[in-house]
Amino acid sequence: MPDAENRAPTIKEVADHAGVALSSVSRVVNDHPDVSASMRRKVLASIESVGYEPNLLASSLRRGSTMTIGFLISDISNPLFASIANGASRVLDSTGYAMVLTSSGSDAAKDEEMIRLLRWRRVDGLIVTVADEERPGTIAELGRLDVPVVLVDREIAGLPDASVVRTDHATGMRAATTHLIREGHTRIALITSATNVRPTRDRLAGFRAAFSAAGVAPPEDLIRLGSFSATYGESCTTELMHLADRPTALVAGGNLVLEGVLRGLYDLGLRIGEDVALVSCDDTPITQFHSPPITTIARDTERTGEVAAKLLLGLIDESTTGPQIEGLPTRLLVRGSTQSRHVPAARA
Amino acid sequence: MPDAENRAPTIKEVADHAGVALSSVSRVVNDHPDVSASMRRKVLASIESVGYEPNLLASSLRRGSTMTIGFLISDISNPLFASIANGASRVLDSTGYAMVLTSSGSDAAKDEEMIRLLRWRRVDGLIVTVADEERPGTIAELGRLDVPVVLVDREIAGLPDASVVRTDHATGMRAATTHLIREGHTRIALITSATNVRPTRDRLAGFRAAFSAAGVAPPEDLIRLGSFSATYGESCTTELMHLADRPTALVAGGNLVLEGVLRGLYDLGLRIGEDVALVSCDDTPITQFHSPPITTIARDTERTGEVAAKLLLGLIDESTTGPQIEGLPTRLLVRGSTQSRHVPAARA
Repeated sequence: MPDAENRAPTIKEVADHAGVALSSVSRVVNDHPDVSASMRRKVLASIESVGYEPNLLASSLRRGSTMTIGFLISDISNPLFASIANGASRVLDSTGYAMVLTSSGSDAAKDEEMIRLLRWRRVDGLIVTVADEERPGTIAELGRLDVPVVLVDREIAGLPDASVVRTDHATGMRAATTHLIREGHTRIALITSATNVRPTRDRLAGFRAAFSAAGVAPPEDLIRLGSFSATYGESCTTELMHLADRPTALVAGGNLVLEGVLRGLYDLGLRIGEDVALVSCDDTPITQFHSPPITTIARDTERTGEVAAKLLLGLIDESTTGPQIEGLPTRLLVRGSTQSRHVPAARA
Repeated sequence: MPDAENRAPTIKEVADHAGVALSSVSRVVNDHPDVSASMRRKVLASIESVGYEPNLLASSLRRGSTMTIGFLISDISNPLFASIANGASRVLDSTGYAMVLTSSGSDAAKDEEMIRLLRWRRVDGLIVTVADEERPGTIAELGRLDVPVVLVDREIAGLPDASVVRTDHATGMRAATTHLIREGHTRIALITSATNVRPTRDRLAGFRAAFSAAGVAPPEDLIRLGSFSATYGESCTTELMHLADRPTALVAGGNLVLEGVLRGLYDLGLRIGEDVALVSCDDTPITQFHSPPITTIARDTERTGEVAAKLLLGLIDESTTGPQIEGLPTRLLVRGSTQSRHVPAARA
């Protein structure tokens, strides 16, 4: 520290040392995107020589911006949400915004509390995947925000100003169900969460549409809409496979549901692709490395996070006006788990 | 909003409305742990009736605490780090601290930058897993922090004041290698990252110790210390399995390395547990659901995050003094991938 009198070095001393304008130092400190690499290096070197320590907290109060984005998800240890967070973080990192990550632990009551805390922290915007779209407390807390909100795969009628990133789960589920029907299945079970989140409504619509297009009544008795958890996947699988007229194919609507379904099938000694066909949602390592590999309705989760962050930044800097809806596709990856003669342990 | 003159309601009005002390309102707003559930409900109801909006940012400046913890990891989309983050977040959530999550994308140069930004944001403490323990810039930036630091599975000589959560990778690797030697293997390859992070040095020591205890020279020509990436795992596997005196067993030192090793083996048409034995580190869904299931050196990653957060909170509130080192165990889960007669698709 070059300062003998223990006086804190100022931003002006940095600018003088670097021979640049005050505003240039400020842009580097705030990690503004419009800074050349050479300017950045020069200013950072001067910051270090002079011993300047910016206080982003104090400048937040002056600017009225905390340069933070709140990100509320249900469970960070779910690789799906982790991948969405990663995509968002990659976009935010290059803009100087930091991500405050909070998790509801799939507890709908905690959504409210977390949104309130993020509001009190004065985040500049929020990316949200709530556990229950219909919960009045959650809708009320979201409505109290005076900063932009982007919903990821959620749809909240009482929140007309929010932008939305929406994956087309219906088309993927319709393609998967059509594929199963063509393979000769009609006793197809669907196991997924309740209809208080958009992906379930989408998937259910796609499931029924495939039957309708094939001129077959959908097996309503085999639809289980309860939770995205592994426990739910396992208990439904056990229950369904004990039915007198048991399903010949299972669709796991969620990557944790899949883990439960696999446990249930293993415990019953049922062979996937032989005794029962299996489709999952979301292309995680399990689906790729399982033997046989598991037919999957895939989507680009990193891209989902990127798009959410870009939508939010556009609303924050007002380069976009009004709520935006961005759709992202799903695609069906057909693998051994739905083919009567599967290839063992093939590569995805 | 009950206020006709558009004057912001004060914390005093909340206290009067609830009939409690000002300090009680303050404790609820700051999510202090010593608040009864009934007090919490009463104060939150009054906050809502009165229309009070706390500004945690302003009170941060007054208190000199931002109630934020910086968490720097290499890759949030790696389920391992996500699970550590989840464990830490569960502890922090009940204390009012929010987690600012940043990721270096496994780029050692970005570690420096992220630590600097977190310092400028005045986080109250930092939980860190750096990509390179020996990088002078990273060590210098960590040294500039005047808030507590907890290192997760890292060891930095120039940072004597940091607390450490340290997983005992050596014992797990020694047990796994001993198990392979007892199964008749001596040509055992180890694929993992460079020695500039503690887990690699630990695993290497455990690997060599097992050979030494068995009175066999370790196969130094089969040790590959380069990176934790899937690409590295795949290219090393391809290279190793083309050697004239190729290994009969592979140890993947990392969950992404494992994905690469599996791709490499599949591409060569080699059957795991038949043509080559396989051990991995960290019990992810792939190791459990692979057929045969993969022998794994497991550890409790959620617990790692919890312990890191608790150590940090202890340092922040000064209930512990001086750096702490907390050790966590590994354990060997023997499965079909290392047993000549494996059980197909058994449950973990």
